[in-house]
Amino acid sequence: MVTYKGQISKAVIRRLPKYRRCLNELIKKGITKVSSSELADLMGYTASQIRQDLNNFGGFGQQGYGYSVDKLYEEIDRILGLNKSYNKIIVGFGRLGQAMGSYIINSEPNLRIVGIFDVKQTIQSAEHDEFKDAQVMTCKSIISFVKENPVDIALIAVPSYKAQVVAETVVEAGVKAIWNFTAVDLDLPDDIKIQDIHAADSLYALAYYINEK
Amino acid sequence: MVTYKGQISKAVIRRLPKYRRCLNELIKKGITKVSSSELADLMGYTASQIRQDLNNFGGFGQQGYGYSVDKLYEEIDRILGLNKSYNKIIVGFGRLGQAMGSYIINSEPNLRIVGIFDVKQTIQSAEHDEFKDAQVMTCKSIISFVKENPVDIALIAVPSYKAQVVAETVVEAGVKAIWNFTAVDLDLPDDIKIQDIHAADSLYALAYYINEK
Repeated sequence: MVTYKGQISKAVIRRLPKYRRCLNELIKKGITKVSSSELADLMGYTASQIRQDLNNFGGFGQQGYGYSVDKLYEEIDRILGLNKSYNKIIVGFGRLGQAMGSYIINSEPNLRIVGIFDVKQTIQSAEHDEFKDAQVMTCKSIISFVKENPVDIALIAVPSYKAQVVAETVVEAGVKAIWNFTAVDLDLPDDIKIQDIHAADSLYALAYYINEK
Repeated sequence: MVTYKGQISKAVIRRLPKYRRCLNELIKKGITKVSSSELADLMGYTASQIRQDLNNFGGFGQQGYGYSVDKLYEEIDRILGLNKSYNKIIVGFGRLGQAMGSYIINSEPNLRIVGIFDVKQTIQSAEHDEFKDAQVMTCKSIISFVKENPVDIALIAVPSYKAQVVAETVVEAGVKAIWNFTAVDLDLPDDIKIQDIHAADSLYALAYYINEK
């Protein structure tokens, strides 16, 4: 049992998925243990940074042995809450919503897409076998659907001009976590958890680094 | 003319697109000047943080007046290099590649998609009028195409297992900047600029915050 040392910084939480990805690669290669300096090499961090990160969760490395890859991977899953299942809806089912839906079905077994919402035309053009387990509805049904079906996460991939209204609707329906793929910074109550994929931000950063002297 | 005070931290670069987005909203509303405390309210930062960020670029606010919205927006564009044009290729033209291609065409006028690469079947199913200005080819043509057509940025949206090979190919062809939409941490020479959209990372962070006590 790991003891957490109080609140964990956002920066550490941001790095954990990268640890998970790296450890997953090691598992695939059949590697069972890893030192902090090996992890540092693989991830481009310093060994001291890595030890500091993992110490946030009470450590679980052993001096002179390093970390058990399986155990570290499992612990990170547990820390991130990936050992649980989540019900999810997708609001906005254009190409981006479909792409993410397909990713979830193929790569995230503990996420269940229970409902898909969009305008009528998009829904018709998007009726694929791949999404046959999810109910597909127009956005008018969001509130009644969520009130009857517990939903943990709403993925929002509607056009920007609809983003705020749609987000307010899912929050009104009772959803507490939003995975936001629109270009908008949503203005929602403080208790709502939001993670933004503002793809353009990284594009602009790329432009900056291209021009950096 | 703004004087830059040495190297700018990655954290500041990461925040600049958010400033830009916020200023763009103000421009749309016809607002012409803004104080650091107003910006702080809108963006959820402190006024001191905002002054500190903008001071990296030599300031350009005026005591008692605040910032000219237009001028600040323009300066941020210039800092980010968004006052220039970029030639771009898309490698991997499934739903995600198409979604991002469509976004670029509709929202990023200074990015020109010059080439699109994928396997044959995907290309055929993806031949939309929307992308008629770009040459569409199989991945075998990447090297010859890039050698004849200057390409600034490659957007990579292929399946994960192909990501590293594709990235090495575009780098071999001479592309220096990669916008990576695969789940893979690419291993490339240090002079190659990479920005990753690891969507799953933010999903896992969301799972963490849902469970946070």
